[in-house]
Amino acid sequence: MENVMYFDQAASSWPKPPAVMTAMMACMEEYAANPGRGSHQMAVKASRALFETRKNLARLFGVKNPNDISFALNTTHALNQAIKGFVKPGDHVICTNIEHNSVRRPLEHLKATSQVELTYIHNDEYGDISLDELKRAFKSNTALVVVNHSSNLLGTIMPVGEIGELCRTHGAKLLVDAAQSAGILPIHVGSMNIDMLAFPGHKGLLGPQGTGGLYIHPDIDLDPLLHGGTGSQSEAIQQPTVRPDRYEAGTQNTVGIAGLNEGVKFVLAETVEKIHEKEWRQTQLLMEGLLGIQGVTVLGPQLGQNKTGIVSFNIDDADSSEVAFILDQSFQIAVRSGYHCSPLAHEAAGTLARGAVRASIGYFTTDHEVDVLIQAVKEIHSQYAK
Amino acid sequence: MENVMYFDQAASSWPKPPAVMTAMMACMEEYAANPGRGSHQMAVKASRALFETRKNLARLFGVKNPNDISFALNTTHALNQAIKGFVKPGDHVICTNIEHNSVRRPLEHLKATSQVELTYIHNDEYGDISLDELKRAFKSNTALVVVNHSSNLLGTIMPVGEIGELCRTHGAKLLVDAAQSAGILPIHVGSMNIDMLAFPGHKGLLGPQGTGGLYIHPDIDLDPLLHGGTGSQSEAIQQPTVRPDRYEAGTQNTVGIAGLNEGVKFVLAETVEKIHEKEWRQTQLLMEGLLGIQGVTVLGPQLGQNKTGIVSFNIDDADSSEVAFILDQSFQIAVRSGYHCSPLAHEAAGTLARGAVRASIGYFTTDHEVDVLIQAVKEIHSQYAK
Repeated sequence: MENVMYFDQAASSWPKPPAVMTAMMACMEEYAANPGRGSHQMAVKASRALFETRKNLARLFGVKNPNDISFALNTTHALNQAIKGFVKPGDHVICTNIEHNSVRRPLEHLKATSQVELTYIHNDEYGDISLDELKRAFKSNTALVVVNHSSNLLGTIMPVGEIGELCRTHGAKLLVDAAQSAGILPIHVGSMNIDMLAFPGHKGLLGPQGTGGLYIHPDIDLDPLLHGGTGSQSEAIQQPTVRPDRYEAGTQNTVGIAGLNEGVKFVLAETVEKIHEKEWRQTQLLMEGLLGIQGVTVLGPQLGQNKTGIVSFNIDDADSSEVAFILDQSFQIAVRSGYHCSPLAHEAAGTLARGAVRASIGYFTTDHEVDVLIQAVKEIHSQYAK
Repeated sequence: MENVMYFDQAASSWPKPPAVMTAMMACMEEYAANPGRGSHQMAVKASRALFETRKNLARLFGVKNPNDISFALNTTHALNQAIKGFVKPGDHVICTNIEHNSVRRPLEHLKATSQVELTYIHNDEYGDISLDELKRAFKSNTALVVVNHSSNLLGTIMPVGEIGELCRTHGAKLLVDAAQSAGILPIHVGSMNIDMLAFPGHKGLLGPQGTGGLYIHPDIDLDPLLHGGTGSQSEAIQQPTVRPDRYEAGTQNTVGIAGLNEGVKFVLAETVEKIHEKEWRQTQLLMEGLLGIQGVTVLGPQLGQNKTGIVSFNIDDADSSEVAFILDQSFQIAVRSGYHCSPLAHEAAGTLARGAVRASIGYFTTDHEVDVLIQAVKEIHSQYAK
């Protein structure tokens, strides 16, 4: 698919740095044994690959002890571990209206089954929340606040540091969904008061699918989501308490994590500041072009405002999936349409009826591709105008 | 690690058929987009890769509808989904003494937290159970029986078909842990009365780590272990009921599953019958050689008995981890030592104090390698005898 112009970076980034593939092949060919399970050389090499990746992730997120990061299948797995492992019956949880279904559905499940109270904070059409409303939402039993760092539909960036301060003041913990920010925005769990951070490996961190993880503050003990073998304390019937084993039952995805390590190293070398600046600049190019077409509306933060590399838009009242289909079939441009697993964000943006076309930008997106996308939307618009 | 003789196949198989790596690279380079999440060509190709793999797995396991198979991070994830998604407070569950911690720990967790009753069936020193004891263990509230198809320590093969019949008679469901049998022993969920089958991708199916799955009989509805986005029914606050989406929240490991597909195709082409016959023949070679050394004992099924490619042994009263260390350092032979996440199996085998050395055979193990391992054990034994 070499001719595809790929604007679905918010789902999975593509292409990956070549070192990612090289590391994965080296793993498959040389040491695809079980990390933490044997003491032979191949198993030791596999364990080392996991530890190296943990160390680099810790460096990226300002985590002191790499073992406070455990690996997961994806961000959804990490969020389920955090939410279901932390929230107890009788607890009150706060999140925002524009959370992804990977946050909303676990919380709604707990609300329906475990006497958990849930408050949604409103987002305005730009995705922003009122910190005053958040302040007022805290109750004596508020145990957890969950926010996405950046909206997967709008690109809005949440004031995580300020939210973290409010949480500390009110004795609640903060779980951040970094699905759209890990590897893209600066994250420092200490200075931002983040107690738990769920992140994907296959988006901004430029690793393969099947990877992701969860940082858990050393003072927090979660009920493990998965019980099973860890290679440690095998004789105990309980899950070991030692980290990361406690949250990593079963054989980990060594080959995926070996690839992820190269993605994280790439991000560390380029710096998130440079990555965000580059992606933001291209969102502005894209938005300028799109807003120059009569009848095109862009959701979320407008020109000049800070945001991540996500530009969701509609052409007049055209069906978003039809526009995406034409972009794919006639222009070889890959975008997403529909609800993006975030229905309440559409309510905030006023697009619940028809969804939106989402074009998302990655570090390897070129200005030329942005231009081709703008021209394609112009052509589609002129077809509709006829 | 080209010179390593790898006898840790029961942990992760290695090497893999070259087509596995080729398919993984093609995925990373051409279509590492999100399956089921977009309608553009790359996403469609990713969806197709998952469906192809599901189809081939269905063919291998005699599953009628491929969508009754959902993917998982590993067997542990699949087993946790099956056990925690099925068992309700007040239920009685039966398993055997030689279950892996991936079965024992979730069950013990439910016993400790959710008023679940648990009965362990005894295994003799060969790992065998008495079907009469199993019959007597059923109670009016027995909801589930969990058995491994083959023991990860002893290689014992359970009479799954007969256990399935007993379950049907007593109105209980049967969950089979196929960690050591998928791709190695014939499995037909229909004729063996298997209601749920948890399997790894990275062992007998010759795929990469980070893959595995769960077959769920169409009549069984499990509470999802992971709640989140599925690309379907995005506007609903509940997890979709449609399969496999219901049990596959979040982005799946497309690259791993693309590799797994080639492993499964390899197994289908070679046939499990041929694979098992070849591996069994080599267990006999290895056991003959080992039993010819005075003071060496082999756990589990003895010469001539049916078993999978696992040969666990001890040299006199030598510490198993020391033996494994010498095999690794002085002979470049990779084996495992210790408890293998299966403490009660050691109790059955009488090796709880010191564990055992486990040499496990795969489809690519050669007779020459078996011979080198025997010679190495002879040398180590003669050192100890001094």
